[in-house]
Amino acid sequence: MNDTKRVEAFSDGVFAIAITLLILEIPVPEGSGHRLTQALLEQWPSYVAYVVSFLVIGVMWVNHDALFGLIAKVDRTLVFLNLLLLMVVAALPWPTALLAEHLRNTGDAKVAGVIYSGVMVIHALLYGCVWSYVVHRGHLLRPTVDAEAARSTRVRFNLGSLGYPVTVVLALFAPWAMLALHGLLAVYYAFNQLSVPERREPEEAPATVA
Amino acid sequence: MNDTKRVEAFSDGVFAIAITLLILEIPVPEGSGHRLTQALLEQWPSYVAYVVSFLVIGVMWVNHDALFGLIAKVDRTLVFLNLLLLMVVAALPWPTALLAEHLRNTGDAKVAGVIYSGVMVIHALLYGCVWSYVVHRGHLLRPTVDAEAARSTRVRFNLGSLGYPVTVVLALFAPWAMLALHGLLAVYYAFNQLSVPERREPEEAPATVA
Amino acid sequence: MNDTKRVEAFSDGVFAIAITLLILEIPVPEGSGHRLTQALLEQWPSYVAYVVSFLVIGVMWVNHDALFGLIAKVDRTLVFLNLLLLMVVAALPWPTALLAEHLRNTGDAKVAGVIYSGVMVIHALLYGCVWSYVVHRGHLLRPTVDAEAARSTRVRFNLGSLGYPVTVVLALFAPWAMLALHGLLAVYYAFNQLSVPERREPEEAPATVA
Amino acid sequence: MNDTKRVEAFSDGVFAIAITLLILEIPVPEGSGHRLTQALLEQWPSYVAYVVSFLVIGVMWVNHDALFGLIAKVDRTLVFLNLLLLMVVAALPWPTALLAEHLRNTGDAKVAGVIYSGVMVIHALLYGCVWSYVVHRGHLLRPTVDAEAARSTRVRFNLGSLGYPVTVVLALFAPWAMLALHGLLAVYYAFNQLSVPERREPEEAPATVA
Repeated sequence: MNDTKRVEAFSDGVFAIAITLLILEIPVPEGSGHRLTQALLEQWPSYVAYVVSFLVIGVMWVNHDALFGLIAKVDRTLVFLNLLLLMVVAALPWPTALLAEHLRNTGDAKVAGVIYSGVMVIHALLYGCVWSYVVHRGHLLRPTVDAEAARSTRVRFNLGSLGYPVTVVLALFAPWAMLALHGLLAVYYAFNQLSVPERREPEEAPATVA
Repeated sequence: MNDTKRVEAFSDGVFAIAITLLILEIPVPEGSGHRLTQALLEQWPSYVAYVVSFLVIGVMWVNHDALFGLIAKVDRTLVFLNLLLLMVVAALPWPTALLAEHLRNTGDAKVAGVIYSGVMVIHALLYGCVWSYVVHRGHLLRPTVDAEAARSTRVRFNLGSLGYPVTVVLALFAPWAMLALHGLLAVYYAFNQLSVPERREPEEAPATVA
Repeated sequence: MNDTKRVEAFSDGVFAIAITLLILEIPVPEGSGHRLTQALLEQWPSYVAYVVSFLVIGVMWVNHDALFGLIAKVDRTLVFLNLLLLMVVAALPWPTALLAEHLRNTGDAKVAGVIYSGVMVIHALLYGCVWSYVVHRGHLLRPTVDAEAARSTRVRFNLGSLGYPVTVVLALFAPWAMLALHGLLAVYYAFNQLSVPERREPEEAPATVA
Repeated sequence: MNDTKRVEAFSDGVFAIAITLLILEIPVPEGSGHRLTQALLEQWPSYVAYVVSFLVIGVMWVNHDALFGLIAKVDRTLVFLNLLLLMVVAALPWPTALLAEHLRNTGDAKVAGVIYSGVMVIHALLYGCVWSYVVHRGHLLRPTVDAEAARSTRVRFNLGSLGYPVTVVLALFAPWAMLALHGLLAVYYAFNQLSVPERREPEEAPATVA
């Protein structure tokens, strides 16, 4: 139960499937000739939503990888916090499809945008919980990780999280600006906000992980 | 054939896919304006069913991970018992969708609820078979696992299983109480019911599994 | 390129996804009351097809696992033979859905049954190719595997393969008997037909695989 | 963050799912009798598109495996270049379905063919970026890999890439020739174009990667 390997494998699976299911939400138009070209052009919100959600999930995965790279073992609490996080990750194809379907109608885009951003807020909260749990006591961290430095990343990490409630408000006024902000937040988290200086592993100690 | 690694990888894959396919069952409403909001609100049984089934499969996976953490190798019988178990896990998106579709009509919810709970009964039976097979002879357990203690968990484990036939009966009278009971059973199994005291691995022996 | 690890991981992924996608082919009936119950009962061919195809793919996976357990490395030819094999495995949800859709109408069941069995014939041929390639020169086998004994399994292995062309003919007369024969063939291959006596690994040699 | 293991596992997942989702794009005809047979025959473009796209993704995966076999660690830049590459891989079921749907009508096939080939051009460009990034500085390569020889593969590798813009032009005149050329390009890349002579690992040094 305290091996990180299967938790990582299961999480990788859920991330990989959620990110690949996004494509199923883009319709294949049936029309012919001019109507086909037009139908393909008209569903551009689907392409934009695909790219943004792919980047968002991709960046989530990269940070999940970085986080689990800092820990040596898991406990039951972390496994279940991670499971709740994955519940939101696995759900993302749905708000993505909802947004793509309604992005061209401003009124409906607000409803869809609030839901899309709301799911992201929940995700950011859960991610914060996972990270706080890991660094608070630090009992799961690898021996080479500086627990104090890890704790201090929480400020920088939560700073980005503040962007998510903003996207909910933004969705009510400008759905497109909201989508752009999600893109920007993905870029923010693409840079390593969980970077923790690692002490050099002493030469004589045996490797801690295979 | 007696390596647990690929059986775990394949099982992780099936669990991860089944849990992520659940989201495909939530419809993306097409209406506009007021009708969109209403359609989104009206399909709340889909959200509830998603959360409950996600937790159920998630807890199943956590226990599957715990179980395979106790064994050092697999034999042909365990591989096939595990395959039957996965057949039920992979099927869960279907009763979930069925329940979500029919939960608002009490009469139909009973039919859907009996099927949903029936699948869970089959799952609990198969899980019991896998666990009993593993602990009965104990020939697959890791050398550090106390086979006697492992056997004694069966009482506590099967105690929870008794809840599943109850959900079938409950489905006939109160589909909602049934769903709540499934949530409670997931919480019961979220606590480690397979906890087995492990003897300390002797310092001089080489590690048995990587 | 000559490490089996990623080929196994990719294959496990394709097997796990194909086996889990089978459930998407079972429709969720929309009717209410008596019509719901009837619709659920009427689509029993879907349930039977799910169980048979799940067992077939599951047994394929178990034997794939057994086969790769005998080899120490892969070469480009084996990777591509394996890729062709996976092309057929990944396709199986389609003939399964076709068969489920048309099993109740005897005339249409023959067409669907011939296609279903035809795909299985192609699968058996490719599996035979993979196995023959592995044992023919034996250059990929693990050093502890007796190449001569491995070669001699081909008779027993191909004996089962003869059953698949029979299912094609049977589909033309009795689609149900055909489906039952597929179940029987899965049971035949569930018993280890690739069992190869392994020489004891010499104590002084280092372990060949991690 | 500098371990290749999870990047490979996540990439394997995306490749495996994208390649297996291709089958969902082949419709299951509902008609009966003569109409069923005819409907099955008429959707042959779906079968051809399935086979070609399966081979294309399969060959992509084999080369991805070969590429990651040459590197010992990843950095943030490579992780994100790889993520962009996966965004295109995960998208492939969509242009495949589009092409299958419109291949029989020459006019529409041109539109669908240009999109299909365009996605492949983007994929080739991103693949070229990943490979160039890896070999340019060579800081991620395994110590046994000859960085100079790795750099020199770029000519041969990019030679194949020139075929993709040709497919876009070809799509405008002969969609079928375009599809055949994609098949040929898959065969070109099936042969190891990333083959790099490896220096013998010195006997006394410890293995660098498991």
